Amino acid sequence: MDSFAATVARMPELERRIVADPSAFRVLTGERPTGALHLGHYLGTIRERVRLQELGVDTFVILADYQVITDRDVAANVREHVRGAVLDYLAAGLDPERTTIFTHSAVPALNQLLLPFLSLVTEAELHRNPTVKAEHAASGRALSGLMLTYPVHQAADILFCKGNLVPVGKDNLPHVELTRTIARRFTQRYGPVFPEPDALLTDTPEIPGLDGRKMSKSYGNAIALGLSDDETAAVIRRTVTDGERRIAYDPVSRPGVAGLLSTAALCIGSTPAEVAETVGDGGSGALKSLTIDVVTAFLAEHRARRREFAKDPALVTAVLRRGNARANELAEATLAEVREAMGMAYDAA
Amino acid sequence: MDSFAATVARMPELERRIVADPSAFRVLTGERPTGALHLGHYLGTIRERVRLQELGVDTFVILADYQVITDRDVAANVREHVRGAVLDYLAAGLDPERTTIFTHSAVPALNQLLLPFLSLVTEAELHRNPTVKAEHAASGRALSGLMLTYPVHQAADILFCKGNLVPVGKDNLPHVELTRTIARRFTQRYGPVFPEPDALLTDTPEIPGLDGRKMSKSYGNAIALGLSDDETAAVIRRTVTDGERRIAYDPVSRPGVAGLLSTAALCIGSTPAEVAETVGDGGSGALKSLTIDVVTAFLAEHRARRREFAKDPALVTAVLRRGNARANELAEATLAEVREAMGMAYDAA
Repeated sequence: MDSFAATVARMPELERRIVADPSAFRVLTGERPTGALHLGHYLGTIRERVRLQELGVDTFVILADYQVITDRDVAANVREHVRGAVLDYLAAGLDPERTTIFTHSAVPALNQLLLPFLSLVTEAELHRNPTVKAEHAASGRALSGLMLTYPVHQAADILFCKGNLVPVGKDNLPHVELTRTIARRFTQRYGPVFPEPDALLTDTPEIPGLDGRKMSKSYGNAIALGLSDDETAAVIRRTVTDGERRIAYDPVSRPGVAGLLSTAALCIGSTPAEVAETVGDGGSGALKSLTIDVVTAFLAEHRARRREFAKDPALVTAVLRRGNARANELAEATLAEVREAMGMAYDAA
Repeated sequence: MDSFAATVARMPELERRIVADPSAFRVLTGERPTGALHLGHYLGTIRERVRLQELGVDTFVILADYQVITDRDVAANVREHVRGAVLDYLAAGLDPERTTIFTHSAVPALNQLLLPFLSLVTEAELHRNPTVKAEHAASGRALSGLMLTYPVHQAADILFCKGNLVPVGKDNLPHVELTRTIARRFTQRYGPVFPEPDALLTDTPEIPGLDGRKMSKSYGNAIALGLSDDETAAVIRRTVTDGERRIAYDPVSRPGVAGLLSTAALCIGSTPAEVAETVGDGGSGALKSLTIDVVTAFLAEHRARRREFAKDPALVTAVLRRGNARANELAEATLAEVREAMGMAYDAA
């Protein structure tokens, strides 16, 4: 909590520096392509990436395909999820000329950094990571070698491009801390190659899903960005609510109603209580109709753009090729510096 | 021990198959460039590599520079050790046209395989590896992430080139077993890309150093292949022996004398007892003189070739460039198959 409080306290000054000199920053952010991106991603992280891009910050978005298999056997449908995510990025306003969109599996020189970085951390430090502990517990599986080491892999994601700004929620602060530790130890042993990145705490509230729990693909309570209006209506109508006519915001005893209220409120920039006032005695049916209307309106523009981009399948391929090429170029340049610093440049006679 | 006995039992048939059809085999072998190669390496492994090459087996020799930092902070003088090892390989008869000599740090697509492979093993399996346990204990340090995962990295070394034959001593059998497990699990989850390699048990006896312990750079009891005759004489004369005139082979109470006897015996294809007979009542001085003579005679040709090769510093650079280029070509081809098998080929529109 101390580290969290200190990070929170640093945010206004960090934000001021970003706005004053965006070109001094390089952001690394991204996600695991485990399913379709949904409204929670849009509100929670994608909009923030677009904001940083528009400020003029050099932005890298990684589709962490290898991290899909930290907590499951195979990456089912990963190609479909990657391509869908790229469509959502483009529709949301990420511009592949300014934002580098790339995949883990396409950038060997990035992945190679895992090796020297693993030498900089102890197995005990890896075991102490609270996010690894939590995700391991949630997975209900034996801890895999990849799950244990993934925070080090994440450090490679950030440092390969010398990213110095990492947008994270509170839960992921330990990853940024470990990345700073790895950068610092590398500097101590081999000399300066890497910056110590700053965490950029996102203050977006947790986005509730339709059942009141956190919106998540795995809970089945998410409104995917790529759905049609009809599919969206069907998903919202399936929400389990209750027969009470009077609609009120009560997340504990009426989670379905609360999830709908929160979703609608986020889409119109209101509060769940205000939305409940509007519906009044209309019951769940009216609440669902209102939610369907505001969600489809909120996503209308995004979805229109997404459909347009989807017409040309070569577009996504070109975006990934371009992003992977830039990521490889930077990764190879960084790796050359790493080899030089570690005394492993054997080419000179 | 059962697995060891079973492996031993398989050796005659494996050897028969190698001789009958050497082109059906690809060998991966190598070492950590932690110091100068010495007589123990020459007798224990380098000669065997030359034998396999001459049989017509496609041979890969890795200089595992990243594995130098499994048990120490930095890879001190690694460039010097790598270049010295290449000179010794060439002098011993490895032919860069037929044998691929390469370094870990130069082959990103090999290192990338660590990621999917780490998903195929549990942390518990990593901890059970007896070699990791022993090397961790010997290091006297906290277990690093790299030490814990290095057997998986070694599986990548073997499998990136689809190596199916791995010369090992008894201690390293668990690494080959883990590599077989990883290959098998990859096949189960994603389909056939990798072979399950066979261990080729080397029956060379442990090579004793000048103090009777195993010959090792870290014990300071080694006769480096690159020494001059004068330096060799000085190293041998420094051996701590005793004042007894009668020379006899008694490794327990006369370790220095025994080390000299073993070294001399290996160089002339004799036994320590026979060498002791020859020296008779000559004492340690005569034993040392005889050992100096036979060691310098044994290494004379190797050293002459080594000095010749060393005159052209561009030669080693060219050998490494050639080897690294071939290793990269194979690693990238294998990685493309891995991406396809894992569903991570996003380039097709």
